[in-house]
Amino acid sequence: MAPPMDVNQQTAADMGAARSRTSISVQIVRNYLYGGQKQWDLRERLEKILIQEQLFGKQQREFLGRTDQYIRATAITNRLNELRRIHSWSAEEYNTATSLLSEILPISLHDVAFQPVFLGQGSPALMENYWDLVNEKGIQGCYLQTELGHGTNVARLETTSTYIPETQEFEINSPSLTSTKWWIGALGKSATHGAVQAKLILPNGKDTGPHLFFVQLRSLEDHKPLPGIIVGDIGPKAGGGMAAQDQGFARFDHVRIPRTNMFSKFAEVTKEGNYIQPPHAKLSYGGMMYIRAGMIPSAAWTIARAATVAIRYTTVRRQGELDTNGLERQVLNYPSTYYRLLPILSRAFVLIELGRYTVKALDEMQQRLANRDTSLLPEMHALLCGLKVLVSTHGVSDIETARRSMGGHGYSAFAGLGRLYIDYLPAATFEGDNFVLDGQVVRAATKLCNAVLSSTSAVTKLPPPSAYLRLLSANSTPAPVTASTWHDVSSVVFLLEWRAALMVKNFTQTQGKAEVDANINQRLAKAVTEAFVAVQVGEMINNLTTLPSEDANVVGRLYRLYLLTTAESALVDLFSVGLIHPTGAGDPTQDLRLAIKALCLGILPNAIGLTDAFGFSDWSLDSALGVSDGRVYEALWQRV
Amino acid sequence: MAPPMDVNQQTAADMGAARSRTSISVQIVRNYLYGGQKQWDLRERLEKILIQEQLFGKQQREFLGRTDQYIRATAITNRLNELRRIHSWSAEEYNTATSLLSEILPISLHDVAFQPVFLGQGSPALMENYWDLVNEKGIQGCYLQTELGHGTNVARLETTSTYIPETQEFEINSPSLTSTKWWIGALGKSATHGAVQAKLILPNGKDTGPHLFFVQLRSLEDHKPLPGIIVGDIGPKAGGGMAAQDQGFARFDHVRIPRTNMFSKFAEVTKEGNYIQPPHAKLSYGGMMYIRAGMIPSAAWTIARAATVAIRYTTVRRQGELDTNGLERQVLNYPSTYYRLLPILSRAFVLIELGRYTVKALDEMQQRLANRDTSLLPEMHALLCGLKVLVSTHGVSDIETARRSMGGHGYSAFAGLGRLYIDYLPAATFEGDNFVLDGQVVRAATKLCNAVLSSTSAVTKLPPPSAYLRLLSANSTPAPVTASTWHDVSSVVFLLEWRAALMVKNFTQTQGKAEVDANINQRLAKAVTEAFVAVQVGEMINNLTTLPSEDANVVGRLYRLYLLTTAESALVDLFSVGLIHPTGAGDPTQDLRLAIKALCLGILPNAIGLTDAFGFSDWSLDSALGVSDGRVYEALWQRV
Repeated sequence: MAPPMDVNQQTAADMGAARSRTSISVQIVRNYLYGGQKQWDLRERLEKILIQEQLFGKQQREFLGRTDQYIRATAITNRLNELRRIHSWSAEEYNTATSLLSEILPISLHDVAFQPVFLGQGSPALMENYWDLVNEKGIQGCYLQTELGHGTNVARLETTSTYIPETQEFEINSPSLTSTKWWIGALGKSATHGAVQAKLILPNGKDTGPHLFFVQLRSLEDHKPLPGIIVGDIGPKAGGGMAAQDQGFARFDHVRIPRTNMFSKFAEVTKEGNYIQPPHAKLSYGGMMYIRAGMIPSAAWTIARAATVAIRYTTVRRQGELDTNGLERQVLNYPSTYYRLLPILSRAFVLIELGRYTVKALDEMQQRLANRDTSLLPEMHALLCGLKVLVSTHGVSDIETARRSMGGHGYSAFAGLGRLYIDYLPAATFEGDNFVLDGQVVRAATKLCNAVLSSTSAVTKLPPPSAYLRLLSANSTPAPVTASTWHDVSSVVFLLEWRAALMVKNFTQTQGKAEVDANINQRLAKAVTEAFVAVQVGEMINNLTTLPSEDANVVGRLYRLYLLTTAESALVDLFSVGLIHPTGAGDPTQDLRLAIKALCLGILPNAIGLTDAFGFSDWSLDSALGVSDGRVYEALWQRV
Repeated sequence: MAPPMDVNQQTAADMGAARSRTSISVQIVRNYLYGGQKQWDLRERLEKILIQEQLFGKQQREFLGRTDQYIRATAITNRLNELRRIHSWSAEEYNTATSLLSEILPISLHDVAFQPVFLGQGSPALMENYWDLVNEKGIQGCYLQTELGHGTNVARLETTSTYIPETQEFEINSPSLTSTKWWIGALGKSATHGAVQAKLILPNGKDTGPHLFFVQLRSLEDHKPLPGIIVGDIGPKAGGGMAAQDQGFARFDHVRIPRTNMFSKFAEVTKEGNYIQPPHAKLSYGGMMYIRAGMIPSAAWTIARAATVAIRYTTVRRQGELDTNGLERQVLNYPSTYYRLLPILSRAFVLIELGRYTVKALDEMQQRLANRDTSLLPEMHALLCGLKVLVSTHGVSDIETARRSMGGHGYSAFAGLGRLYIDYLPAATFEGDNFVLDGQVVRAATKLCNAVLSSTSAVTKLPPPSAYLRLLSANSTPAPVTASTWHDVSSVVFLLEWRAALMVKNFTQTQGKAEVDANINQRLAKAVTEAFVAVQVGEMINNLTTLPSEDANVVGRLYRLYLLTTAESALVDLFSVGLIHPTGAGDPTQDLRLAIKALCLGILPNAIGLTDAFGFSDWSLDSALGVSDGRVYEALWQRV
């Protein structure tokens, strides 16, 4: 047995040894993740400013009750705005600073939901009167959609906005308890104004469905609710989640607003009370689509945090069997640990890149929308539904997997992942319940599949998210799966495309003829979205040639790990549609499983380097188990 | 469209209609779950007493900070003890009352961990001096095992207990920061005494490994730590979990205790300092095994709570498509909802029964242990490792699945499942990290499998947990899977036994010859444990003949659903070992999936009746969305 070494020194030595094994350039991979040295420098420059603010320290946060957390968030918001003015931050700088804080702030709903509605759907008159106030946060907005009785099914919202031609006003009304606006972020205490979703009722009694209206909620004098409006906080959330966010409710008792307060860039009501239709029913989806697209990088960086903490801790935590040095093995070196954690690392990398792609595609669509060209809308909508489900599902489970890989200490608040989880959790439900969104993905896929199947010639112009359907019209057959399949990127991508194509085809041909099982939407949507992402990952691997070869090698392994673990989780599908057959020569899944293990072992020496490349400071991670120097026991002791 | 109905009346009407559809006798099924009318009556009688105590109300709990939750828990403990004396409760009555409270109480560690150690391992001298105090809770105990640096690997604990023959004392010492006892429930503020796990060092310097010692921690005069002992609280837990529990740390600086304070029923140190070995190395595992066995009913009833809340809410929540009455569909009627929730209901039923079986088997083993017969120990140990993993894995994921099935409102603290989840979460880690326990299951399985494979005659005497291995020696081959397989209980049980047998056989034969994949232990342990449970479920179905036929029918459907969803989650394994083949005639998984759907549809009309049979009162569930009368929106509004 080796001479006894102080365990704290050992943790530091283990971390040092892991760093010295790193074969990639952390700086180069970091710049790759951030999209360039410039973005990183911006981030670093801003973090230096933020770190100096004692108010922004997180160490006492776990000891605060909900009210104190809200007060702290408000103080942070005010100071952040002061800093914005002091340093004359641009919108990009302000947004970067906000994301660096990684705090739940009520103002975020203003920034992410309210302000974009103004920008995207405000009429020229509304913009002229209010934009400066909105932009300078002279008023604080919120976005009132969900009601007590209705969330996902927006078409059935009960709140009404009835046009009164005599006074040229709308009358906002909550006709029932269940029509109470509910879960509205920043409404409980903070917001002064809101964008209210309400059914627009014309003077002839016609209900034209939900539209958005700009409504002042509270007085700018004393912050009291305006006459006819009841507002309040809906209470604490599960596990103390989003404690600093004041989700609230609101009821309207025949509240009048001027006609010009309708967000009328697309649909309008004339002075006389005539309705002018928008050019496309889904034109107002733009804002929601940006929010969903933003969920991709947000999931990615959240997963990156969890991966960093767990990989650092399991690198220095030793437990169980003795290794060749007579020390207990590092927990990360157990197959059951790296098999859980390295796929999480790979998802963080993939989703960071994927987020960049998606926002770019969305910008393109938005530009077309500005010219009232809606051709990209339906496909983009279905894609974003699928991606939202994919990233939020991974986000929730990856944080928890990372937390659990840390054993008992992972349950300590000082590990930092408990809060990360509970605050991230609602992502699976908000912006469309994942199970409902799956249905939208399937609807779009079957519609296009029907078109492909009924077309006599090969369909040449499939939109990118549905490119996998080309396989059905190409008279091609899938290549048989062999051991070498798993070592060839394009083979795996093809396999995942074939899986989606065959599953969607089987379903489309069955529809109305035979019964389908209860879980079909979930399996189909997953297959469709994963096929799209697999193609993107193939692209990402091709694009790695811009990096030095060792960096490209290692990041390439991560991307391949993503593809293989996707295939592993799709094994039942691959069997079901006949893409993998038993060969009679042993377990047909074994080649894939061993390929995953080999990739993991190839990545393992760079695990610490790759997490360092995310660039999180100890201040930002705020985790005793994720400290950069590895001295986890001292960090834990210090917090206690 | 139907005439508009008040939504609150509609929720009540929906719940009433669901109850009137119930074809089972709720009372008969309830008595079946509770093991008889007598147990139910006991429970009801005690709940009537508890409900009257304002202190035991839970509605304000979500608004309390951690300190106040601890103070409340202490007050509850004191009042509970007063009630025990006032009503002269027996141990059974006291335990039932405690479980009815469903609160995290520091005293529970005394009841569940400390007192059993005393009873199971206390020497006659220790019992004579302390048992009355322990039993009457005149002192409060805790169980000090885990250290900052070591949890699962008990053999490497650093705390020492050195015997000093001169004074006939042990000297308890913490030699390092990482040897600090950590995560010890009730140690932070409450406990006066503890059972300390420490390496026993003999006068000749020999280390005989971890043993248990009875150590006074705090003064009974002023509750201050005794000299040489540093104790404190380790801080908040993830998501505010177990807030009322004062998990603590302790360091010992050469603290002396008398020789008789060793828990020496099995292993002893003589006055001279000689060591008397226990008859079996795992003899002291008895206590831990009871704790693990107790985790089965605890998981079962926790899942039952989650199922009750989610099924009630989704019965009255209407959203989305219109049904034949022109109302939106009840959420539970969507395939994607009942496919998630009914399997959870089935697991609650199965695990309640399974818990009863296991505790009975353990009692038998314990009686033999009392006579120093250890023959049942190794198999029972491996089985309980596997069951602990199975039930805690289901417990955690089922609560979250139930919570998420309720959409946005599920994230409200008033839904009640957030707290249930975060408090249950550590079950996946404590009493042995699930991933480590998997290894123990696999070790026992391969050992026995080797014996079976190397035996020339059929092995006739396999212990029940390993009965599936008989298939390997019986010269039998598995029956081919057809559509009718899924409708025959014994075929499904056989299939799950074959899956375990073939997987363990393949692994055993491969060992040392070929590489294994990184996740093998997890897959094997799952297969082995699920085979055992499947056999028990087969038995449960056979035993249903004691119930009236309709009750037996419906509960039987639940049990079959358990078997089929187990098979569904095992599909990759079934393909891997060749138990299911593609037939060329479409998706080979479709029969199973449709059988699951058909079972679900058969259970659906009784979903409310079956959850009513768990017998939870509104007081006990403490959930605005799980109220018995279905008026969820009013309940939510009232709490806000």
